[in-house]
Amino acid sequence: MPPILVLVTGGSAGSWRVDRNLCVRGEPLAAVSHLRVHEASELLPTAADATWSLRGSTGHVRYVERNEKLDLATVTPPLARAEATCAALIPIRKTEAWWDLAQDERRAILEQQSQHIRIGLAYLPAIARRLYHARELGQPFDFLTWFEFAPEHAARFDELLVALRASHEWSYVEREVELRLTRVDAGARP
Amino acid sequence: MPPILVLVTGGSAGSWRVDRNLCVRGEPLAAVSHLRVHEASELLPTAADATWSLRGSTGHVRYVERNEKLDLATVTPPLARAEATCAALIPIRKTEAWWDLAQDERRAILEQQSQHIRIGLAYLPAIARRLYHARELGQPFDFLTWFEFAPEHAARFDELLVALRASHEWSYVEREVELRLTRVDAGARP
Repeated sequence: MPPILVLVTGGSAGSWRVDRNLCVRGEPLAAVSHLRVHEASELLPTAADATWSLRGSTGHVRYVERNEKLDLATVTPPLARAEATCAALIPIRKTEAWWDLAQDERRAILEQQSQHIRIGLAYLPAIARRLYHARELGQPFDFLTWFEFAPEHAARFDELLVALRASHEWSYVEREVELRLTRVDAGARP
Repeated sequence: MPPILVLVTGGSAGSWRVDRNLCVRGEPLAAVSHLRVHEASELLPTAADATWSLRGSTGHVRYVERNEKLDLATVTPPLARAEATCAALIPIRKTEAWWDLAQDERRAILEQQSQHIRIGLAYLPAIARRLYHARELGQPFDFLTWFEFAPEHAARFDELLVALRASHEWSYVEREVELRLTRVDAGARP
C-alpha cells in the first residue's frame, strides 16, 4: 500500500477532543482543545488556523522480520472501529546517538533487549496502532504514534506505555508528548 | 546529523547541465536543460518556474550493519570535490512487492543475494554518493540517488550501474530514470 501522509493540526476544533496533554520528556506541545487528522497521498498545505501542526507518513516495516510480520498480520485490528472512541497521539523524537547506530545495532536494542515488537503484540487486538514516520519530513519529532481503543481498555493502554517506557530502547527517547483524546461524535453513537 | 531535505527542480537554469536523460524503466521525466539542487532542514516550497520537481530526504542507514558502516566511513568521500564535475541523478521506484517484504527479507535480497553494499564499496572513493529517501514524502519515486565523480571516472561509474542493474534486487525496480550532469561552472576552474 502506498504511504498515507498525515497532517495533524492542534487548535480549537476537530474530531478529537484533547483530554490530556502530558509532556513526558523534552519540550511540551502548546495546549489545544481539539485535533484534526487529515490524510492524503501527498504533502498537504498547513492550515492557517492551527496552533501547531505535525506531519507524518506511514511506510514499510523497518525492524519487523518475516515471522513477526505474519504474527502481526493475524491480530492487527483496523483503525476507526466504532467502539474505539479513545485515542492517543504520542509524538516521539530519538537522540542522534540512536540514528547514528547501524541497522543491526538498532534492531538489537529494539527487539532483543527491549522486546518492543513482542510487548506490542500482547496488546493486540485491543489497542489498534498506526506508526507515522516524521524525521524524513524535517519535523520536530521522528515519529507520530497513534493508538485507538475502547474506553474499557484504557488501563491496558496505560500498562503498555509503562512497559515501553521502562525499556532500554526508551533511553534513546529525548522528546515525548502524550495527548489523550476522545472522539467528538462518541456520545452520539448508540 | 539531522536529515537534509532536498528539492531538485528541472528547468531551463541551474548549476547542473543535463547531458543525458535516459528512461531506464517505466515512465520518463520530461526533457529539461538544467537542474537546481536546493537543500534545507525543512520542506521547501516548489519553485513556480520548474518543469518538474522532486523531493527527498537523507537519513540513517536502513540495511547497513555495524562492520559495513565502519568500512564505509573509512572510504566515503564528501560531495562537492573540486575535481568531481560530473554527476548523476537516478530517481528509482521499487515495486509494492518489495515494500511488502519484511526487513530481513529485504536485507537478504539487497546484500546476501545482490551485494549492493559490497559493490558500492568497490567504487569508493572515486564515486561520491548520497541517497535521498522520497517514498515517505508522497513522491513519484522512492529514492533519489545522487553521484559525483571526476570525468576520468565516468567509465567506472557506468560499470557500477551495469553491476547494480544486473542484480536480483533490481528485479524489484519498476521505474528508473538516469540523468547525467555536468557542473555549469566546471569550465571556469583551472
